[in-house]
Amino acid sequence: MTPMFTTFRGGQSGAWRITLNSAVRGEGLAAMPALAITQGPSIALPLVASATSWRLAGVTSHVRYVEKAEAEQLAEKQAPLGRRQATYAALIPIRKSAAWWALSQDERREILEAKSHHISASLKFLPQVARQLYHCRDLGEPFDFITWFEYAPEHATMFEELVAMLRATEEWTFVEREVDLRLKLVE
Amino acid sequence: MTPMFTTFRGGQSGAWRITLNSAVRGEGLAAMPALAITQGPSIALPLVASATSWRLAGVTSHVRYVEKAEAEQLAEKQAPLGRRQATYAALIPIRKSAAWWALSQDERREILEAKSHHISASLKFLPQVARQLYHCRDLGEPFDFITWFEYAPEHATMFEELVAMLRATEEWTFVEREVDLRLKLVE
Repeated sequence: MTPMFTTFRGGQSGAWRITLNSAVRGEGLAAMPALAITQGPSIALPLVASATSWRLAGVTSHVRYVEKAEAEQLAEKQAPLGRRQATYAALIPIRKSAAWWALSQDERREILEAKSHHISASLKFLPQVARQLYHCRDLGEPFDFITWFEYAPEHATMFEELVAMLRATEEWTFVEREVDLRLKLVE
Repeated sequence: MTPMFTTFRGGQSGAWRITLNSAVRGEGLAAMPALAITQGPSIALPLVASATSWRLAGVTSHVRYVEKAEAEQLAEKQAPLGRRQATYAALIPIRKSAAWWALSQDERREILEAKSHHISASLKFLPQVARQLYHCRDLGEPFDFITWFEYAPEHATMFEELVAMLRATEEWTFVEREVDLRLKLVE
């Protein structure tokens, strides 16, 4: 539960090769061949804008919507990052609208789960798709969240189903910027 | 709703004179004569530890527990910071335990409001006591929250009642570090 800062640097080298870089909504990210990921206990500073790299940063944190029964289901089903067979990944940063952030906690939970089934509908993709959510809104970053997904090549179709399911929800009508990066682990 | 970073610097000069510096639980903060407050759209960096100053930093953010009906009551009753008559202030940074942060959203809400009445019981101190909550846990800071309170000298007794009420709650059993600074506006 201790906050851990993670920096995703798009650039010329890194453990992951970027195979797709798609601006789903709003401004995209510059095309780069590779992604490097680093972690540390302090805030990753923004770099001066560069033609040959960009960086995103976020922090793992406590849950904001998950309730006790859901936490138990998630803990039982979810897989960790770093599995040997999970050589495919996706990095999906999103920013939600001011209207979303002006909502109260119960209104956001209602849209996220009661209407959009974000938590319960995602359970069926576990443990095949492993994921980690990073928060970045309160760090003054351009995105509000970054989600990192890892899966084996044979679960690529299942992963597309997960992404399509989330994008069709009422919750996603509050997403005003989204970029979708797909990656392969460098052998 | 846009995150705004605020830095509180204890040192030799500033608009507020520190009249009391009390370590309520855990490690305190070094005695300093004055407090300066600055705001900006980016993260305030930690300084190298100094014998003549310290700094705390936090970010205003969206609500984490307040529900719609409560938000409406708060909006109706609360006063803004910076009122001419509010020449007394308190700066109370706290850190909660790992056990708190491991709880799910519904468990934290249950303790905070259903059992501790943090939101509803605080309403009776509005608008006399104005306040602003700053989040700092996810910035990698030593405290999780900083609350800034402002009130007129004639409401000092009422303010003590508010502080005593909160410290007697079940929620406060999760507080593992708390410092209480009282201040007067420099004429």
